[in-house]
Amino acid sequence: KADCTRLLLLSVSAATPTEEMNGAGNLMDFLDEPFPDVSTYEDFHTIDWLREKSRDTDRHRKITSKSKESLWELIKSLLDAWSGWVVMLLIGLLSGTLAGVIDLAVDWMTDLKEGVCLSAFWYSHEQCCWTSNETTFDDRDKCPQWQKWAELMTGHAEGAGAYVLNYFLYILWALLFSFLAVSLVRVFAPYACGSGIPEIKTILSGFIIRGYLGKWTLLIKTVTLVLAVSSGLSLGKEGPLVHVACCCGNLFCSLFSKYSKNEGKRREVLSAAAAAGVSVAFGAPIGGVLFSLEEVSYYFPLKTLWRSFFAALVAAFTLRSINPFGNSRLVLFYVEYHTPWYMAELVPFILLGVFGGLWGTLFIRANIAWCRRRKTTQLGKYPVLEVIAVTGITALLAYPNPYTRRSTSELISELFNDCGALESSQLCDYVNNPNMSRPVDDIPDRPAGPGVYNALWQLTLALIFKIVITIFTFGMKIPSGLFIPSMAVGAIAGRIVGIAVEQMAYHHHDWIIFKNWCRPGADCVTPGLYAMVGAAACLGGVTRMTVSLVVIMFELTGGLEYIVPLMAAAVTSKWVADAFGKEGIYESHILLNGYPYLDVRDEFTHRTLATDVMRPRRNDPPLAVLTQDSTTVEDVETLIKDTDYNGFPVVVSRESERLIGFVQRRDLTLAIKNARQKQDGVVSSSVVYFTEDAPQLPASNPQPLKLRRILNLSPFTVTDHTPMETVVDIFRKLGLRQCLVTRSGRLLGIITKKDVLRHMAQMMNQDPESIMFN
Amino acid sequence: KADCTRLLLLSVSAATPTEEMNGAGNLMDFLDEPFPDVSTYEDFHTIDWLREKSRDTDRHRKITSKSKESLWELIKSLLDAWSGWVVMLLIGLLSGTLAGVIDLAVDWMTDLKEGVCLSAFWYSHEQCCWTSNETTFDDRDKCPQWQKWAELMTGHAEGAGAYVLNYFLYILWALLFSFLAVSLVRVFAPYACGSGIPEIKTILSGFIIRGYLGKWTLLIKTVTLVLAVSSGLSLGKEGPLVHVACCCGNLFCSLFSKYSKNEGKRREVLSAAAAAGVSVAFGAPIGGVLFSLEEVSYYFPLKTLWRSFFAALVAAFTLRSINPFGNSRLVLFYVEYHTPWYMAELVPFILLGVFGGLWGTLFIRANIAWCRRRKTTQLGKYPVLEVIAVTGITALLAYPNPYTRRSTSELISELFNDCGALESSQLCDYVNNPNMSRPVDDIPDRPAGPGVYNALWQLTLALIFKIVITIFTFGMKIPSGLFIPSMAVGAIAGRIVGIAVEQMAYHHHDWIIFKNWCRPGADCVTPGLYAMVGAAACLGGVTRMTVSLVVIMFELTGGLEYIVPLMAAAVTSKWVADAFGKEGIYESHILLNGYPYLDVRDEFTHRTLATDVMRPRRNDPPLAVLTQDSTTVEDVETLIKDTDYNGFPVVVSRESERLIGFVQRRDLTLAIKNARQKQDGVVSSSVVYFTEDAPQLPASNPQPLKLRRILNLSPFTVTDHTPMETVVDIFRKLGLRQCLVTRSGRLLGIITKKDVLRHMAQMMNQDPESIMFN
Repeated sequence: KADCTRLLLLSVSAATPTEEMNGAGNLMDFLDEPFPDVSTYEDFHTIDWLREKSRDTDRHRKITSKSKESLWELIKSLLDAWSGWVVMLLIGLLSGTLAGVIDLAVDWMTDLKEGVCLSAFWYSHEQCCWTSNETTFDDRDKCPQWQKWAELMTGHAEGAGAYVLNYFLYILWALLFSFLAVSLVRVFAPYACGSGIPEIKTILSGFIIRGYLGKWTLLIKTVTLVLAVSSGLSLGKEGPLVHVACCCGNLFCSLFSKYSKNEGKRREVLSAAAAAGVSVAFGAPIGGVLFSLEEVSYYFPLKTLWRSFFAALVAAFTLRSINPFGNSRLVLFYVEYHTPWYMAELVPFILLGVFGGLWGTLFIRANIAWCRRRKTTQLGKYPVLEVIAVTGITALLAYPNPYTRRSTSELISELFNDCGALESSQLCDYVNNPNMSRPVDDIPDRPAGPGVYNALWQLTLALIFKIVITIFTFGMKIPSGLFIPSMAVGAIAGRIVGIAVEQMAYHHHDWIIFKNWCRPGADCVTPGLYAMVGAAACLGGVTRMTVSLVVIMFELTGGLEYIVPLMAAAVTSKWVADAFGKEGIYESHILLNGYPYLDVRDEFTHRTLATDVMRPRRNDPPLAVLTQDSTTVEDVETLIKDTDYNGFPVVVSRESERLIGFVQRRDLTLAIKNARQKQDGVVSSSVVYFTEDAPQLPASNPQPLKLRRILNLSPFTVTDHTPMETVVDIFRKLGLRQCLVTRSGRLLGIITKKDVLRHMAQMMNQDPESIMFN
Repeated sequence: KADCTRLLLLSVSAATPTEEMNGAGNLMDFLDEPFPDVSTYEDFHTIDWLREKSRDTDRHRKITSKSKESLWELIKSLLDAWSGWVVMLLIGLLSGTLAGVIDLAVDWMTDLKEGVCLSAFWYSHEQCCWTSNETTFDDRDKCPQWQKWAELMTGHAEGAGAYVLNYFLYILWALLFSFLAVSLVRVFAPYACGSGIPEIKTILSGFIIRGYLGKWTLLIKTVTLVLAVSSGLSLGKEGPLVHVACCCGNLFCSLFSKYSKNEGKRREVLSAAAAAGVSVAFGAPIGGVLFSLEEVSYYFPLKTLWRSFFAALVAAFTLRSINPFGNSRLVLFYVEYHTPWYMAELVPFILLGVFGGLWGTLFIRANIAWCRRRKTTQLGKYPVLEVIAVTGITALLAYPNPYTRRSTSELISELFNDCGALESSQLCDYVNNPNMSRPVDDIPDRPAGPGVYNALWQLTLALIFKIVITIFTFGMKIPSGLFIPSMAVGAIAGRIVGIAVEQMAYHHHDWIIFKNWCRPGADCVTPGLYAMVGAAACLGGVTRMTVSLVVIMFELTGGLEYIVPLMAAAVTSKWVADAFGKEGIYESHILLNGYPYLDVRDEFTHRTLATDVMRPRRNDPPLAVLTQDSTTVEDVETLIKDTDYNGFPVVVSRESERLIGFVQRRDLTLAIKNARQKQDGVVSSSVVYFTEDAPQLPASNPQPLKLRRILNLSPFTVTDHTPMETVVDIFRKLGLRQCLVTRSGRLLGIITKKDVLRHMAQMMNQDPESIMFN
């Protein structure tokens, strides 16, 4: 069975000159397919975008011309034109619903680790105490309907014994959840592990991974995501939600032959589904579309932009009508700040950006090193044990600290919040001036109370814990997103810096930097804003998102007011992180797994030519070609048997080497098999003709086999002097699989996408400095 | 001098087989340029994106390799890497400042038509009455410092005489402003007329129009834009602001050789500048970026996305610190609604969408017909007279109606507004229930008072007036944007519908459709929201913007709440308008002017092949080619003299016709000129060699001329069997100028961008129905 860590299917360093390694695929019965349309791809192969596009145009042309024949055909053609919107609607509805269900389930199960609701066991802590009359947050937490496990079992809510029992049960539940999660993944859907975004990026760039977006993956990923998040591990649900949404997209593609039969069109739908995924993950539809555009998608025409937007909106509104957060808000972390920021605050914001960049670099390096270790050593053989061990350690260390005990998104939410008058959390334990009688919204800066200092210590410990544990968590065999842990790290760091700046401003408002903007009795520093800036910086450092990150954060706060701090931090963090290495975490995982992904952002700046990259190389055997009118069936069969190339160029003759076309291996195999079975007189010595007319042969000669219809008469060619930067550009923009190299009309060689990737990797290693200046 | 309406430089139907018509360009001294880099383009030519890109890579490579030599070079390379950000910063600052200045000047001059501020004549009406103590809007309008012209001149503020005098002066000022505007445009910068967006789209797609983005255009467009808007004509400043921002971009490009010498890189900057333009036009930075991406730009890599965003933000914040609207708000029309919308309201929203689509269709058809008439008849010869006449009629008809007398953006602002408790405008003249004591934000639906009915009549007249006059205004020889008039039409229609629905809901709340969501005493309908939805629908119908439109509107309201109504209207309007014709107003004007614009959105679905499009056609003379080693200098000179092609393919020999490269006409001319002057022994009978080594000739033969270095060894080729849809795709995505057509290595012909456009136009005319189903 396929395995998450063993997806190293296409090692870039492999020396085989084939386009893709896998040449098997014999399980499918080729004869079931109609003959001229033999073009489904095999697993782990790359699609040819140009070909998919022209197939779609053909289909479209057929429908349009038919639509004039009858009313029924006209209706069918209209339905076809509308099917894109229908798919988007369905994706939005399903992914919004799933996200809502996941949110509700996670809430309930996270609380289940600590206790149970007596009035209705399926209520989470918050829902259970909803009807309670206590006004403050703290008191409402202790409503009588909600009982901790120790209280329920022994009757004692307080004391050392109760604490130990609660601690023990917390760990036990966590272990149970994570064991269930990893077992389900192992048994039913190995592809359900990880965040899924690296693979989706690869798939969207034109790679085929069968089953990665299948029904089983969808089901298992949804279930195990709930379990994994509830187990308290340092992971989030945002990345996996994108995977879930893409599975929904794939599911609905199969309803319409327009999408199910065309890998190119299918990818347009998947791009939109990714947007819907982010939209429900954060409640940020515009951010979702930009995320899909900036981070995930490969081919993103304007039509897809519009449809993605539609899908993202439908998903967001579906989620809102389910209302899992109980506050009618769309966004995950709703915040409202009451004070503006000041120019001088840009200094700490930029420092947070630097921190985010360093965290991104550290995390990527350490995580990749650990994942490589997992791959290459014994460790990789015991995934269940690994998950159990990490969960155990996480639960053991997390319970004593109130900031790590609760779910990470609750933590972030609290860190983002501005301290209002009603807030009763430890972080808002400021010393109040008794004479103060200001409106609720405008509380001046106050000195920190003991609770705040206590919280600072706990937050520092939580920060170190999160930093270390996340490195080991991301990449295990369970669904695990990276957004939430990254944001948590940044939010903790940001809040600490925010409180520090606030207290400095309060105690030293005569300092020159504070003098201008922070008079005594004014509310000048919002520590929650620092937490948000820190979260953006850390997320940016890890993922290298830019515009979409800022837009998502903008949608969370809902005001353009705070876009400058967010942007300053995001830019700094990206620059700092880029200085240490160009790849974000997703690209690093793509490289680690050896997926054939041609990044749109890498600029190829080397001075090599097509002739340096093409195969055959100098000492290789000559290129395997067919001639248009002098190859026999037997020759072809031998060629197919001896090589595993994906296709063969056809030339006029071996002497002139003038290229006339390209024939796919699959088409050739199938055509010969067909002919042998059905066409009389085709024997091994029959000559294969790719010319327009086969010559009239004497009756004694065996029947010729005419194969012009399977010949691609417009293969893509470049000359041997074409700079590789142009070739890379062509591969990227046109989504080619292969390209033939000619010199003054003579065929010299072939360049495949894999050759291009291998060459780029080589060049990158030779000259790692040059990437710094892009 | 070039002329706005005569930009029909490249008629698509022209039968000349050259790539571009203009073969002159003799004014420039070629010898001033360094020899190997001869690649600035001539006016009205198309750039070759691939070539520009590879030139930039060369430059970058040079800088990177030099940067290792010394610290100074390293600093220079870092400065070069940062120059992009510096340009963005400068663009943001300048375009934000210009937008602020324009806003202030327009405010003042618009009010100048009616009266003057006695305390300081440079104050606008609002600024003049700022310090006044009156609380209501209506009373504040009548502050003593502000005097109407009649009052100032005759001492009487009221009465028929005063009215007539004010009326007369209003028309006089309007005529003065528009006369100044059109004269300035005529004399100093003919390119400053129109909205500029069609031309910018064309420029961004790779066309060269020298001076279109020059300093004079910038200056004159800024000044005349103020005059044109102040004159009260039915036009807006949004489109021209995009042009102004692009001029700023072009200006700052010239500071850095990285951008000034590379037409491809320059276009990246211009794309970002367009985003900054929309950003300041509406105060919507994200919408601006998406507008640039969706509507204007051709090549929009991710790096540009991020930089555009930066430029748009800087511009928006510069504008905000100038604070021209005096409300610290970034957005042009700030609105806040207090009540949600209900499902049933989608019906009127969709009807508004239909209206928007119909308006779009009507406007585009009528406007294009009128512009064509202007182009082809005597009318086009009297642009000043035309402007004067239209201004006169506009002012004459606009003054009596209070809704057309004031500036259009004020009108839209009032229509968008929700009627609060303090609002004193005629539109908010509802009959209040004396016992009502509700909070200010939540006023229930009330019966309309006489003021509202009066306003409805005036609005209906204003609607008809705006619809008719805008058709004649857009396209005149003054800067004229279309966003504001379109939005005004939609906002008026929307407000009328909104009031109708509101009154229906109030008087018939027992009707089944109102029963569920509109109990008596509830505030269920917000007529301002209808105005906004109508504005979005009309703007969408005219421009066919989609995502960017919704995002701009979203930024205006600042809440995701109202995105669904906006989207429903925008989608409906686009579908309705598309059903009558695929082109938006900008594309229509591009077609009308015959610019060589290859639209990214047009899908080419015809079954033609490259061989059907390539030149030479069947009865044409054979392709003009050079041979690699048998053409003499004289032959080449004859060829250059006899033809006006932009370049020539080079083949091995006329018999084999095997292609080895492509040589540019300019390079060839220059090289021969150079050689004749500087290289001894090169005479007319010298043989031109494109091969790697010229053979050793006996001394008696004339000196050979080696020209391999100017030969492009990697010309782009396709086979004659390549489907045209693929060719179109290649031209579009790679930004090619020309492409050679071969069959089994033999050169058959050439396809230029113009051939592609001509072919697409032909196919479109043959089968106009097929476009409906995209």
